[in-house]
Amino acid sequence: MDKASKIRAGDVRTASRLIRNLEDQLPEATETLKHIFPHTGKAHIVGITGAPGAGKSTLTDALISSFRHQNRTVGVLAVDPTSPFTGGAILGDRIRMQRHAEDPGVFVRSLATRGALGGLSKAVGDAVHILDAMGKDIIMVETVGTGQQEVEIINHSHTVVVVMVPGMGDEIQAIKAGILEIADIFIVNKADRDGARQLHRELQMMLDMANLKPGAWRPPIVMVENVFQPEAFTEQMEEASRQIDAHYRYLIESERMEDRMRRQVLVEINEAIRASILEPVLKDLVASGELDRMMSALFKKESDPYSLAERAAKRYLKKEFLA
Amino acid sequence: MDKASKIRAGDVRTASRLIRNLEDQLPEATETLKHIFPHTGKAHIVGITGAPGAGKSTLTDALISSFRHQNRTVGVLAVDPTSPFTGGAILGDRIRMQRHAEDPGVFVRSLATRGALGGLSKAVGDAVHILDAMGKDIIMVETVGTGQQEVEIINHSHTVVVVMVPGMGDEIQAIKAGILEIADIFIVNKADRDGARQLHRELQMMLDMANLKPGAWRPPIVMVENVFQPEAFTEQMEEASRQIDAHYRYLIESERMEDRMRRQVLVEINEAIRASILEPVLKDLVASGELDRMMSALFKKESDPYSLAERAAKRYLKKEFLA
Repeated sequence: MDKASKIRAGDVRTASRLIRNLEDQLPEATETLKHIFPHTGKAHIVGITGAPGAGKSTLTDALISSFRHQNRTVGVLAVDPTSPFTGGAILGDRIRMQRHAEDPGVFVRSLATRGALGGLSKAVGDAVHILDAMGKDIIMVETVGTGQQEVEIINHSHTVVVVMVPGMGDEIQAIKAGILEIADIFIVNKADRDGARQLHRELQMMLDMANLKPGAWRPPIVMVENVFQPEAFTEQMEEASRQIDAHYRYLIESERMEDRMRRQVLVEINEAIRASILEPVLKDLVASGELDRMMSALFKKESDPYSLAERAAKRYLKKEFLA
Repeated sequence: MDKASKIRAGDVRTASRLIRNLEDQLPEATETLKHIFPHTGKAHIVGITGAPGAGKSTLTDALISSFRHQNRTVGVLAVDPTSPFTGGAILGDRIRMQRHAEDPGVFVRSLATRGALGGLSKAVGDAVHILDAMGKDIIMVETVGTGQQEVEIINHSHTVVVVMVPGMGDEIQAIKAGILEIADIFIVNKADRDGARQLHRELQMMLDMANLKPGAWRPPIVMVENVFQPEAFTEQMEEASRQIDAHYRYLIESERMEDRMRRQVLVEINEAIRASILEPVLKDLVASGELDRMMSALFKKESDPYSLAERAAKRYLKKEFLA
């Protein structure tokens, strides 16, 4: 059986190895992905984002349980920020969602990347395809932080869950406006803390001001209290999973799904083009010694980066496409 | 007088317009930058980063005052996160550092970007060159957040100041390890809050464990209390500015400056190449209708993004450079 077929049959080892090869940017990974792609598009892809410390991992873990109670299979990608200086994943060795490790209906992998700008987002898109082809019903992509890179990762999702906690600084206020644009569902975690009601009120106010069109999805706000109150917590997380399902139905019934898929496809084709065009160029610049010559010219101020890059474009691009 | 000469003479209007054109990615901006580049390399470039709500703007404002007391000229770039959905700067219209508005020795601009991945980091590098050519002695680049994108922005600096506040979540702990690698100076802001001493202790411990080589720079930790205690605050900020100067002297005396400059130049050439090679390709894909055809093929699962991107590489790259 070839690798793509093994993955479609749910083989965990083959899938894990392919994800590892993706992170390491091995060219053979791309060949397998080509065979996997036609068998994707069935899963509901859910992005989970929010500031560090908001409790995303705990909530993702609880969502796994909710979906498993409904007998649905779950894939989770935990996206780790990688230090561009050491190349090592900061959170990589944190052991995630251990209690689901024995459940064959759950597949959890963390994903790091080696430096390359935009490489992480591409790896996320590719890894989502793998989990999708494995036949997982729900795929959750948990990201760290809410910067632009996270937004790109989120672009691979159908439904975006933004996790917030009460009592962050006031600059957060401004950032909420940005989050409002990406959130399909808010979870206010640690809702037993001071300030939870105020945060709820602020979010409601912002949603009121957003002037949603009639029939548009209004992001619900799910309040989740302490994990140490197991009954209330489980019930609140069931509510969160119901809202996730409701959003999926909304996307399909309102024909909004096509917009989301357009966004996904556009991000993905962009990333694939970067990999196919920019990477061979950079490789050649390094291998030919040209990059070193460029750097030395810049140090001596004999040239400027803009002129050097234009010269590189002439070297690599067919001339009919030069700017 | 041409634009580059006007900027070198310190003309604020010309500089502002050029920064605006950069943000809008107008090609004529690049031509001016080519003439500016040979006149750069004199300023001390200081990156200021830290989580939202840490008080970076307040501290940057106080640092402006400290440097101005020493009769040094200051440029500030406040890097704003831009929503990829609206294209508008979230924090853009926040009025920054107003009290320095009348001082001709201070030039403050905020910088946003229109979507393009990596475009913000390139715009920062370019804008730093403009402030540098204007003759500013110190250039501070204030970024929002501490994600990978911020790290790239920070790559344009000689000295990186990381601002922290006590009492953030526990996941922060893990992130500190990453911050440790980029920080040259720590400022613990709101140091009168609970947990400030503990944060100080934790940072010291991490620095102890970092096994710095003899003679290496050990990032100092400057504790800054309440802005409403003006005398103590001013004194603490003077201390911060002294540490910034000390780091600059260290870079030069230890010949570490060359490493930083290599890093800067490498980031910059990478970004210029992306702009010169990837952008004409994407423009042509859109203009020729090829991007639409690709998207439609993907929707119908007639092809996959990897094969389509390889085909695009064949279309645009000279064949001797194809992977």
